[in-house]
Amino acid sequence: MAGESGGRRMTIERVEAYIESHRGEFLERLKELIRIPSVSAQPAHNADTRRAAEFVAADLRRSGLTVEVIETPGHPLVYAEGPARPGKPTLLVYGHYDVQPAEPLEPWLSPPFEPTERDGNLYARGATDDKGQMYTHCKAAEAWTAAGGGLPLNVKFLIEGEEEVGGANLEAFVAANRPKLACDFAVISDSSQFAPGIPAITYGLKGIAYFEMTVRGANRDLHSGTFGGAVANPLNALATILASLKGPDGKVAIEGFYDDVKPLADWERAEFAALPFSDDEFRRDLGVDTLAGEAGYTTLERKWARPTCDVHGLYGGYQGPGGKTVLPCFGGAKLSFRLVPDQDPAVIARLLRAHVARVAPPGVAVEINEYNSAPAVLVDAQGNKGIEAARRAVETAFGARPILIREGGTIPVVGLIKKELGVDTLLLGWGQNDDNLHGPNEKFSLDAFYRGIRASARLFDELSRI
Amino acid sequence: MAGESGGRRMTIERVEAYIESHRGEFLERLKELIRIPSVSAQPAHNADTRRAAEFVAADLRRSGLTVEVIETPGHPLVYAEGPARPGKPTLLVYGHYDVQPAEPLEPWLSPPFEPTERDGNLYARGATDDKGQMYTHCKAAEAWTAAGGGLPLNVKFLIEGEEEVGGANLEAFVAANRPKLACDFAVISDSSQFAPGIPAITYGLKGIAYFEMTVRGANRDLHSGTFGGAVANPLNALATILASLKGPDGKVAIEGFYDDVKPLADWERAEFAALPFSDDEFRRDLGVDTLAGEAGYTTLERKWARPTCDVHGLYGGYQGPGGKTVLPCFGGAKLSFRLVPDQDPAVIARLLRAHVARVAPPGVAVEINEYNSAPAVLVDAQGNKGIEAARRAVETAFGARPILIREGGTIPVVGLIKKELGVDTLLLGWGQNDDNLHGPNEKFSLDAFYRGIRASARLFDELSRI
Repeated sequence: MAGESGGRRMTIERVEAYIESHRGEFLERLKELIRIPSVSAQPAHNADTRRAAEFVAADLRRSGLTVEVIETPGHPLVYAEGPARPGKPTLLVYGHYDVQPAEPLEPWLSPPFEPTERDGNLYARGATDDKGQMYTHCKAAEAWTAAGGGLPLNVKFLIEGEEEVGGANLEAFVAANRPKLACDFAVISDSSQFAPGIPAITYGLKGIAYFEMTVRGANRDLHSGTFGGAVANPLNALATILASLKGPDGKVAIEGFYDDVKPLADWERAEFAALPFSDDEFRRDLGVDTLAGEAGYTTLERKWARPTCDVHGLYGGYQGPGGKTVLPCFGGAKLSFRLVPDQDPAVIARLLRAHVARVAPPGVAVEINEYNSAPAVLVDAQGNKGIEAARRAVETAFGARPILIREGGTIPVVGLIKKELGVDTLLLGWGQNDDNLHGPNEKFSLDAFYRGIRASARLFDELSRI
Repeated sequence: MAGESGGRRMTIERVEAYIESHRGEFLERLKELIRIPSVSAQPAHNADTRRAAEFVAADLRRSGLTVEVIETPGHPLVYAEGPARPGKPTLLVYGHYDVQPAEPLEPWLSPPFEPTERDGNLYARGATDDKGQMYTHCKAAEAWTAAGGGLPLNVKFLIEGEEEVGGANLEAFVAANRPKLACDFAVISDSSQFAPGIPAITYGLKGIAYFEMTVRGANRDLHSGTFGGAVANPLNALATILASLKGPDGKVAIEGFYDDVKPLADWERAEFAALPFSDDEFRRDLGVDTLAGEAGYTTLERKWARPTCDVHGLYGGYQGPGGKTVLPCFGGAKLSFRLVPDQDPAVIARLLRAHVARVAPPGVAVEINEYNSAPAVLVDAQGNKGIEAARRAVETAFGARPILIREGGTIPVVGLIKKELGVDTLLLGWGQNDDNLHGPNEKFSLDAFYRGIRASARLFDELSRI
């Protein structure tokens, strides 16, 4: 046993030495991947998007994995398996090779698809989301293959090209290939550390129920002088409906909305409260006089673990310069509810419809369209072996014990993996909150890139021994 | 006296015979004017707009008036005076030669600037608003000059080219030229009859106070997952503010809003109630299940004589197809209050600001910009000599006694004439409610055009003897 442990240590050291000595090469390869403008939302980039898939496939193939580029009605999936390690657990690595559009281009300090090093960061579209983070796991696999005598556990990669467009093709593929994708653990690196120097493991995500609401009045736009006061104005009605969704205490005012909400556990509230988070700094960074939200909860609790209602878009009538006295015939809003366990998006949709039917003023017709939805995810973090293994791996690589956090965002693939494969996902984010993913001057710390590769290599080892 | 009366009758008959025998020529001239695309809002049409002014100027000059084309910082004004008739009253005719843009072009059945006769109507941009209606007074002047031995009273024409763009140049001109424009009566034909066969004289107009409200939250767009629930959403806040402006009873819920409202007189309520107006037909035409508005008032009362609050435009966040989970940093609304006597737009602006300061949720900054405003107009219609004269003139020409109505629209020049010249305006509309002014397929009834010329000629006569 002592020998096995010693052998293990020597293997890990060789793997880490390989990573250390290949930093420059890994970075150059990442830059090559980033230079491919795989913007999944823009058909003009379809060939580029495919090229990125082929790049990832070739890369994994060179690391000794068996790779397939799987066609879908949209952008292809890259699926790869390491050599079978009977008796060892199986890890599924999910990532995505597509990126958000780079527009608007003007604010970029360097071209979005020409990765540029500045101040220890790599600036480019996709640097952190998700090429840089995803690639850490590819390079960990290479290091194990080249210097560790092969991967220490069964590894499967599933790298998609439609994450940024919410494509349904991944969902169909996973549902149709459950045996192929069967695993004991899943890992995704597509999120952030808590703060610089404070790595984090995310054990909870909010769900979402997204809607578009259209309110219609008369059959045509009317003159507000001639018709005002005689017929319902759909924009006033829309405001009335939207205002009714929340009370002055910041609580969602839809009857039954909180019925299935699982309260925050005492240990969670205690852990959140102990985190180095300053309301004041947060407020100043956002440039607001005061924070706002549901009464009775701290900012981190509201951000991470309480359901919300946000209007994302409003439209209707005259939006140009100056005034126009139109009484418009319709208006609309995009809105969503971020959900927490155990809220069911389908139930929320039903409750919303019932609420709107009750509060809609007379004289208008309201139509509600349901867009994407996903339930919340909450992993039982306490005593969770995968999380414990990940904590050790991340602590070694980042030099600080990762804290356990929840996130307000929604990563639908986590729910998909849970639903179809029955597995909780380890959410190990290497990014920072100010990485500007989706915005101009997206960046990824070079240090985080190298540490991420090491953490992934350590994770393979830790999980192989569970 | 009998001789004078007989002479007068003969004169009128000659004037009317001239109108009758020149119908074709009048129509051709009107078509010429309409073919000039004098779209005041579109700089590409600036030369056309000037051409229309010159057309009107030349036309009035040929009718024996002294004409000036007066330069302004924008489009020119046409001012004309008939030969002085000492001892006779003075009538000021206001009209406008500019038109709304013709876009969208696709729904037009015939080209907007090629006047086309169909079913007894003339279809074109500007046919009714206001070239066709304004031109009736020009042709009445021509008929009196050519066949009546000269205009029977002092006539002044003030025809502007910025009515459709709400230019401030007319206001400045009137304020600076009060002696020149001094008059006993003013007349405007730029509105509608009550219904086919029911001509109307409008004795009341609503005022307006128009605002744009911008609500700002954080200093940048945020991810609604990461930040939702922690910071105020300006779109939710905007909805809350807008919803607070009206109660479920349709009343404006701003404190003090109704303080200066002059109640409808009993005789008005009785007259409105006696008009042939069907809520059901009105509702069906608009395609709504039910009409809506302030409780306790009939539809005509709400349309004509009760103040309203309408949102004209909403904007903010993501308006494209599908969903985007942005927590936007700002949103805005255009809104106005239509005012009735004796509400003061400045007071309403103050009340609105106080109200918004009270109801705005924490964490957002609200900015309110004031756009155009005008007080309501209400002429004491009972025993009004000008209105009585107009009633006789219109009745003769249209074959039906005009009813007295109020209107929900705002014609700022009426307030301007009252304020600067101290004169009430006779609002004699020759149009119909379905004339599609400002929309595609604008039309004007040929019959109304000829009757309008005759009514104007009769009005000159009637007013000359007050």
